[in-house]
Amino acid sequence: MHLFNLKIIKKQYLALGMLVFVVLFLFNSKPAFQCQLTPDSSAYLPTIYGITPTYARLAQKADLTRLSQTLMLVKNFHWIVIEDSASKTKLVENLLKESNLKYTHLNVKTDKPKGSSNHGNGSTASGVEQRNMALDWLRGHLRSPEGTPGVVFFMDDDNTYALKIFDEMRKIKRVGVWPVGIVGGMRVEMPLVTDGKVSGYNAVWKPYRPFPIDMAGFAINATLFLDFPEAKFSRKVQSGFQESEILKYVVTQQELEPLAENCTKVYVWHTRTQKPSIISPKKLKKPLVPDNHIEV
Amino acid sequence: MHLFNLKIIKKQYLALGMLVFVVLFLFNSKPAFQCQLTPDSSAYLPTIYGITPTYARLAQKADLTRLSQTLMLVKNFHWIVIEDSASKTKLVENLLKESNLKYTHLNVKTDKPKGSSNHGNGSTASGVEQRNMALDWLRGHLRSPEGTPGVVFFMDDDNTYALKIFDEMRKIKRVGVWPVGIVGGMRVEMPLVTDGKVSGYNAVWKPYRPFPIDMAGFAINATLFLDFPEAKFSRKVQSGFQESEILKYVVTQQELEPLAENCTKVYVWHTRTQKPSIISPKKLKKPLVPDNHIEV
Repeated sequence: MHLFNLKIIKKQYLALGMLVFVVLFLFNSKPAFQCQLTPDSSAYLPTIYGITPTYARLAQKADLTRLSQTLMLVKNFHWIVIEDSASKTKLVENLLKESNLKYTHLNVKTDKPKGSSNHGNGSTASGVEQRNMALDWLRGHLRSPEGTPGVVFFMDDDNTYALKIFDEMRKIKRVGVWPVGIVGGMRVEMPLVTDGKVSGYNAVWKPYRPFPIDMAGFAINATLFLDFPEAKFSRKVQSGFQESEILKYVVTQQELEPLAENCTKVYVWHTRTQKPSIISPKKLKKPLVPDNHIEV
Repeated sequence: MHLFNLKIIKKQYLALGMLVFVVLFLFNSKPAFQCQLTPDSSAYLPTIYGITPTYARLAQKADLTRLSQTLMLVKNFHWIVIEDSASKTKLVENLLKESNLKYTHLNVKTDKPKGSSNHGNGSTASGVEQRNMALDWLRGHLRSPEGTPGVVFFMDDDNTYALKIFDEMRKIKRVGVWPVGIVGGMRVEMPLVTDGKVSGYNAVWKPYRPFPIDMAGFAINATLFLDFPEAKFSRKVQSGFQESEILKYVVTQQELEPLAENCTKVYVWHTRTQKPSIISPKKLKKPLVPDNHIEV
């Protein structure tokens, strides 16, 4: 009996020792667990589908480069880039691949009426076909098993987006709005908010627009594009009315959700990159070493 | 004796059990250790001291915001931002604080001769006092115990920097050079390389400059500013000669180190942000809700 008792006591010590180590083991492994969980935890955030039309020009790679470097800091971001070209270019293809971003690369050439203006001179109809193609792709994606809930944000490739705007738009239930810096002849174009609702707008450029808001000033719950399969941009509306065109399908002014601290903070700016002036090589006295093989 | 033997055996089991758990414990804690080590491992990289003069204008916050978001992705980066103003502004102070970057915030007002031109209209003398103040600060810092070896890179707040350029400049022994996109009337202004050495330049704007290179096209080993305490920028040189002014103190053409795959890749672009045109509030028929309290 004495021996048996001792055996039990020893077994208890052994069990206690094991327990202490199991506790230490679990406690110590916690940071490792946290490290591994960090990327996964973002899976519960709504996806941001950024839709960016782009076209070939001298500053294209520069503009896409710095935008992509901002997007690298945004969790659960899916970049839909649509080239205005008959085929995908190597420049954009390589840039997207090297960015390590989650992306979808599309292309569609704008069908320009004869005698119409080119890009970059104020024609606001640019991007219509490209954004519509992205919306078509998005509808198919959302219906597929890979489709995740989220918001749709229309992003110009030369605008400036502070990281805070991406946090804001994940709060959207239907359509969120916020101020936009340096646009429409103003320091800041913005919705006016009374009792938490949009009651009007500070806008001086075509203030009679149904929604006098810039493309950078709103984002839309992605599922609304399934609820309203006819929602799209149009070539038939006058300049400055694209935003109103898409918004009219999915929201009323009363339903707009003012974000960015009740539309009192500027987190996006309608910056534009100056068109570079290039000296014609024919005008040079001394010929240069050829540089056409270098991608800029 | 029999009881004693049993005791020894029990002790051996206990010790074995403990050993197994100690091994499991150490093995399991390895990933946690790796996670904690990741930020420290970058301490062995040369520091990049980015020197950025800046001045108040409508697109200032936008430009600094997107530059700061690129810099967030650069390891061991120390941003020296020098405002052209009599005192530090809240705008820049808050932006730097919120960026979580390692930074030094300085200010010095440009002492403009009467009747001279303003910023942004091509005056290339802008930034002279600011960059010199940064170099003075740097010399003190490098002599202090906190000073770490590295390179000095002069960065405009509206230029575009691909992440690759920061990897390139950490290879510098003395002075590294590389092509710059859309600058000086060219798609790309670049050093020409023969047998791994700079043998000339493709430059059409003032090609007679001693170093026909843009400010974004080179970086300098920081210790050279201790070796050459007199090295600085000057208000007395003609437009376009600031780069040559600083380089003449620290390097000869023969010593330049061509980077970016022997100067065949463009990783920096001399982009400029278009000056926004703002409609005067006096010209409006309908007055706006005041928005001066909103920072843009």
